[in-house]
Amino acid sequence: MNKQIEFDSLWYGFHAATMVNGKYSTIADAAIGVRDGRIQWIGPRCDLPLYQAGQEHDLNGGWVTPGLIDCHTHLVFGGNRAHEFEQRLNGISYQEIAGQGGGIAASVRATREESHEQLLVSAGRRLKSLMQDGVTTLEIKSGYGLSVPHEVKMLEVAGTLAEQFPVDIRTTCLAAHAVPPEYHNRADDYIDYLCETLLPEIARLGIADAVDAFCETIAFTPDQVRRYFQTAQSLGLPVKLHAEQLSSLGGASLAARFQALSADHLEYMTEDDVAAMHASGTVAVLLPGAFFTLKETRQPPVDLLRRYHVPVAIATDINPGTSPVLSLRLMMNMACTLFGLTPEEALAATTTYAAQALGLAESHGQLSVGKIADFVCWDVTSPGELSYWLGGNLLKKRVKAGEISHV
Amino acid sequence: MNKQIEFDSLWYGFHAATMVNGKYSTIADAAIGVRDGRIQWIGPRCDLPLYQAGQEHDLNGGWVTPGLIDCHTHLVFGGNRAHEFEQRLNGISYQEIAGQGGGIAASVRATREESHEQLLVSAGRRLKSLMQDGVTTLEIKSGYGLSVPHEVKMLEVAGTLAEQFPVDIRTTCLAAHAVPPEYHNRADDYIDYLCETLLPEIARLGIADAVDAFCETIAFTPDQVRRYFQTAQSLGLPVKLHAEQLSSLGGASLAARFQALSADHLEYMTEDDVAAMHASGTVAVLLPGAFFTLKETRQPPVDLLRRYHVPVAIATDINPGTSPVLSLRLMMNMACTLFGLTPEEALAATTTYAAQALGLAESHGQLSVGKIADFVCWDVTSPGELSYWLGGNLLKKRVKAGEISHV
Ligand SMILES: [Zn+2]
Ligand SMILES: [Zn+2]
Repeated sequence: MNKQIEFDSLWYGFHAATMVNGKYSTIADAAIGVRDGRIQWIGPRCDLPLYQAGQEHDLNGGWVTPGLIDCHTHLVFGGNRAHEFEQRLNGISYQEIAGQGGGIAASVRATREESHEQLLVSAGRRLKSLMQDGVTTLEIKSGYGLSVPHEVKMLEVAGTLAEQFPVDIRTTCLAAHAVPPEYHNRADDYIDYLCETLLPEIARLGIADAVDAFCETIAFTPDQVRRYFQTAQSLGLPVKLHAEQLSSLGGASLAARFQALSADHLEYMTEDDVAAMHASGTVAVLLPGAFFTLKETRQPPVDLLRRYHVPVAIATDINPGTSPVLSLRLMMNMACTLFGLTPEEALAATTTYAAQALGLAESHGQLSVGKIADFVCWDVTSPGELSYWLGGNLLKKRVKAGEISHV
Repeated sequence: MNKQIEFDSLWYGFHAATMVNGKYSTIADAAIGVRDGRIQWIGPRCDLPLYQAGQEHDLNGGWVTPGLIDCHTHLVFGGNRAHEFEQRLNGISYQEIAGQGGGIAASVRATREESHEQLLVSAGRRLKSLMQDGVTTLEIKSGYGLSVPHEVKMLEVAGTLAEQFPVDIRTTCLAAHAVPPEYHNRADDYIDYLCETLLPEIARLGIADAVDAFCETIAFTPDQVRRYFQTAQSLGLPVKLHAEQLSSLGGASLAARFQALSADHLEYMTEDDVAAMHASGTVAVLLPGAFFTLKETRQPPVDLLRRYHVPVAIATDINPGTSPVLSLRLMMNMACTLFGLTPEEALAATTTYAAQALGLAESHGQLSVGKIADFVCWDVTSPGELSYWLGGNLLKKRVKAGEISHV
């Protein structure tokens, strides 16, 4: 008697872009068999072995891709800064706005003032928008608390979101995002506080999967970041870095020296930085939403990244100041239009390589046997349409760990 | 006994940006009374007179604005051009793509091949995306048929959409969009055909509310447009024009001489054009989606338009080649970020002035007594948020002619 393969669910009626090896790696008229939330079988439907399935789902056309992964977000924050956006367009300068207590200081104030519950409501709304556009996994950073209780609060909100929504969340402690007002002009003292008090407490609580910093003339120096990274590493926490966004400080190379998961932004990176990232296996995360919103003109060196085979991810960088972006698919379009990525690279950048940027390459980011059964069925006739359209609702079905999830 | 005002429905529990005079003209804690699909009363809820209402709707917070109006779309077309988008990003030149029969010729071929029913399905999907983002009125152009039967087919599809969806649609005959293959190198002969045969037939059928042309070095000359406009005018059809997108040909001034409803694109317009449009009351329709997608750098002269008090509208220009845009709200963000409009101007540009661009200023585009009760309740804390966020789902309720419409 033939042995039958047993699925909890079988899915068919679509073409698949599996994104294996970061390529479309398409399967026409595909089928996916799921068992215990993972892909147990995938291939052309006509090659299906004998099987028994608890449920069968005919998706009735369209393309299936891995669920999208947003590997760089500041999703949790108090208030918003639409008022500043409006002021700037009415001719008020950044300096005047900062003088009124605006900019990142406003988000820190609002985030500190809001309760866990308040932060949860607004972040949950934003998360729904991302999920409705195909996101099944995302990273959430702290970084508007800038003190133990408020950084812990932000990371706990991220944890609660992971319980309340059918989505995988990786948390990142970004305590070195800005110098808080109580440390005004004492950045080194603030770094001491982070190394001696905050990071050990975050590690003890086990509420962050990684540690991040903002290395920039307007934030922390490479020396300060190095100290902070050394502490993170001694606590067993992987690092990542906001680097080379507005100037070239060698932050990407610094990140590479610490085997960072990713270095992010990277408009001003040099060839030496690219080579260092290649050597360390650090993912380059490009953030076209901030580039667009800030009207930047210097593009990240995409050709160099290709030449050195540095994996490239794209993310929303959703934050209230420089990237109020609620659609990862829109970032795929902007990465193509503004940075010259191909639609295939843009899709790999929000699946395969975004998973790698979160340390999830083993389990997420492509459709192959053993990977988690996170996938999206899109109402499109080619996977390139995901990068082609700006806006719109292309999602037919969103499947998280083998279950249809309505958002 | 006090006279009671009778409403079919009363709406409260929100702040309103009425957009009267193209300004926010806000009402805190507002109420709207609707009778026969029109606004019978609007004001602060505390000022409500004695009333009786068939239904009462508490919107439970948020801001209400007029329903958004997309005054320039090519919503109906066969196929899509995601493949070309992908080819270009893979290094294939525009010329090679045109040589393979790509570009607008591909959309003409696909649109001619598809049936009324096929065109209806794809346009209906795109229309849903626009409506889910707040659109209650839109314009739809023909222009991929380029012959009597196919232009009629496109306009009839637009008519069917208006029957099937809770939305107001204005149709525009854009037969002078491109020279069709059967008139290759005989643009003047094609204009003869339009003036002698096509436009009279369209007018006889009564299926177009206006007539449009593409005045550009790669399309029709001002002289050809003039002949076409003269015919349209003799048939009693108002005109509008795609003008000054890629070069300065004086198309905007030509449009003004014909009292055009609008001139659209306008990156290369001169001060003389602006003055002419001011004199004729022609609306300037800016299309940031095409500007973005084509990576244009020359901005429309927003300051001049302000100085001459030319009303400014914004639209998606949704089309398969240069603006695959499915969100009018995203165009508000791009008009702010790329062209420097304020969020208040951007909202006026998709309500008050977009209505004017469609000849609907009397009935649409603002919340005031007598206007159609088309409005949207948004999950925002200020109307500026509509321009601030990129992507996302901000819509709480969409009301068309006084009825909640689910899309
Ligand atoms: Zn960031
Ligand atoms: Zn157009």
